[in-house]
Amino acid sequence: MKARVHITLKPGVLDPQGKAIHHALDSLGFSGVDDVRQGKYIELDLQETDREKARADVEDMCRKLLANTVIERFSIDLD
Amino acid sequence: MKARVHITLKPGVLDPQGKAIHHALDSLGFSGVDDVRQGKYIELDLQETDREKARADVEDMCRKLLANTVIERFSIDLD
Amino acid sequence: MKARVHITLKPGVLDPQGKAIHHALDSLGFSGVDDVRQGKYIELDLQETDREKARADVEDMCRKLLANTVIERFSIDLD
Amino acid sequence: MKARVHITLKPGVLDPQGKAIHHALDSLGFSGVDDVRQGKYIELDLQETDREKARADVEDMCRKLLANTVIERFSIDLD
Repeated sequence: MKARVHITLKPGVLDPQGKAIHHALDSLGFSGVDDVRQGKYIELDLQETDREKARADVEDMCRKLLANTVIERFSIDLD
Repeated sequence: MKARVHITLKPGVLDPQGKAIHHALDSLGFSGVDDVRQGKYIELDLQETDREKARADVEDMCRKLLANTVIERFSIDLD
Repeated sequence: MKARVHITLKPGVLDPQGKAIHHALDSLGFSGVDDVRQGKYIELDLQETDREKARADVEDMCRKLLANTVIERFSIDLD
Repeated sequence: MKARVHITLKPGVLDPQGKAIHHALDSLGFSGVDDVRQGKYIELDLQETDREKARADVEDMCRKLLANTVIERFSIDLD
């Protein structure tokens, strides 16, 4: 089973890389952009076939390793 | 309209960050993981309301700024 | 003049990527590692030839764009 | 002993993040910038006290885990 994890900065946290992209798009003439946020995207190939179990495992991975939950939030999609 | 862009290394390209996460998960006891790949995730808030036009704009942004298409590929989702 | 900027998470801030690398090194048999921290490194080629002025400019860039000074700190080296 | 590792894209490899920063600096009025390149910076606290041995270990870590030597190069500084 494939799990797709998105890790993004929490709404209040300043995002320098998103801001850099936003300014760069302006400077390249892409004018209709209101906001840009950059996050991380992680794809995991899991042997687990039980969806509930897979989701619980990946949540555990996010809390223990993948995300800094003080400043980031994560979301998990399973195929 | 919100656009969500995923930028990932092409299949043949070695991914040290994905590999580091994979080994780290092993070392933490998460044993049923076959592969891990890490990419970038970018959210754009666009003023454009025409989906075809929005998609064409974001493709252009990916080619001109967001991705290195020699080693990376991108995918675009629109709300 | 070349400016080299290091942007690192402040000491108290959890660093998931550093932690992933640390666990991965353990799992690969590199046992004598006490800590790993990952940051960003940015090289800038500047036209400015006055060192004081160059340093002030790059500090301004760090505060306005490159770093999130709530959670990150930066250091600047000039050639 | 502390090791500081810089991992940067090889000269010919396109660097979208450096390019985004460059455009963003332009758009913010920082006009005297000729080039921007972004890399990774990793600090390692090592138990090893022999410099030759430490350098060899960290080179090994770079080749086995930290860098994709097809597109990236690394440099190592020891305290």
